[in-house]
Amino acid sequence: MNLILLYKEDFIDTSRVILKGRRLEHIRKVHRAKSGDTLSVGLYNGLTGVGTIIRLDHSHLEMDVSLSIKPPKKLPLTLILALPRPKVLKRVIQSVTALGVKQIFLINAWRVEKSYWQSPALENEIIKQTCILGLEQAKDTIIPEIHLRKRFKPFVEDELPEISNNTLKLASHPKTDEPLPTQVKKPVTLAVGPEGGFIDYEIDKLKHAGFSITSLGDRILKVETVLPYLMGKLF
Amino acid sequence: MNLILLYKEDFIDTSRVILKGRRLEHIRKVHRAKSGDTLSVGLYNGLTGVGTIIRLDHSHLEMDVSLSIKPPKKLPLTLILALPRPKVLKRVIQSVTALGVKQIFLINAWRVEKSYWQSPALENEIIKQTCILGLEQAKDTIIPEIHLRKRFKPFVEDELPEISNNTLKLASHPKTDEPLPTQVKKPVTLAVGPEGGFIDYEIDKLKHAGFSITSLGDRILKVETVLPYLMGKLF
Repeated sequence: MNLILLYKEDFIDTSRVILKGRRLEHIRKVHRAKSGDTLSVGLYNGLTGVGTIIRLDHSHLEMDVSLSIKPPKKLPLTLILALPRPKVLKRVIQSVTALGVKQIFLINAWRVEKSYWQSPALENEIIKQTCILGLEQAKDTIIPEIHLRKRFKPFVEDELPEISNNTLKLASHPKTDEPLPTQVKKPVTLAVGPEGGFIDYEIDKLKHAGFSITSLGDRILKVETVLPYLMGKLF
Repeated sequence: MNLILLYKEDFIDTSRVILKGRRLEHIRKVHRAKSGDTLSVGLYNGLTGVGTIIRLDHSHLEMDVSLSIKPPKKLPLTLILALPRPKVLKRVIQSVTALGVKQIFLINAWRVEKSYWQSPALENEIIKQTCILGLEQAKDTIIPEIHLRKRFKPFVEDELPEISNNTLKLASHPKTDEPLPTQVKKPVTLAVGPEGGFIDYEIDKLKHAGFSITSLGDRILKVETVLPYLMGKLF
């Protein structure tokens, strides 16, 4: 928790908050903070700044906050990601949130196991809590938009053209010789397949939607490794 | 296991292997392979190629192998990494092995907790097994060199100059405005600090050893996210 996220309901006055629960525990046990200490804070979906601890005990923390700094810039990236297995999904959402991805579509694909769509990790509230861990890590406050799309074809045919309009459209796929462009410095829509990759039908659909099919080379990487690697290359 | 690693002791003839144990289980239960199927294989620290299954039952797999393809290129990178917490270490070793890092020095730093050095994850055999998981993932065969250095000062003063000779010397550090160079396409020695970063004394020592202190911007990322991100930027 490199930044303590604050919510409107924490405020008892324009610049005074009271925290309990998870954040209080973390500030006491990990930061080992005491009265008078300052902490990085940020308003959920708002500005960041500094909090000064006024009072701190085992049940409450009272803090004066001053919020005037914009959160770090997002990457100009919309990620279209074949739904990973539940165990991996949380780590991936946390990491791409920390990296600053703006918008994520978790989509179906032939090689996505049907059972993955039943995972409790996909419940709205759990996705939100997972994103919050990524924001707290990266000192960001703006939650990414995460959308679930259980049907590949209508998504790619009907929604993707508008989503990817005026962006560089890239798919990362092991079975091609076209290298991924680097340091593009402009908005990108990036499609990343499941373990084993998109099938030919899906690649054809993506091509038809204007996507360039690119590769990172011969190495096959796990989704939690390949996503930060792709983002490092692109931006 | 995108590639089945073979060892000299698996060979019963110049091109015939017998496998048991973990690899057999994986081939039966994950690949669901049967007699006549072909699999990607590679000789540990050697060439890669194709294996054709001759016989397969619950206790043995017999395979004809043909090895003629070089494994994927390594990144020209020596990674100097402050020892991460044990839980994270295995994931990190697996992921940087998969990414193709040639050589890794796990070093001490002020903010590395002493207890991390007691972890069983640092035993030679466990490090090797962890690397093997990364090789199997990335279809590589060449194990990276991993060295442990429990004392920061003698390592940076006495060893690092030679290790980093004729390479671009970079440290990644949150508290600087100098951006990390991108797509450098030449050998790099990259130093990455612990959670919370290197302390000033350590940064001074690295500067003295010729390292440029660079930043990725305002976001603070976990080590398992930042390493692939850094590698994507550099290469």
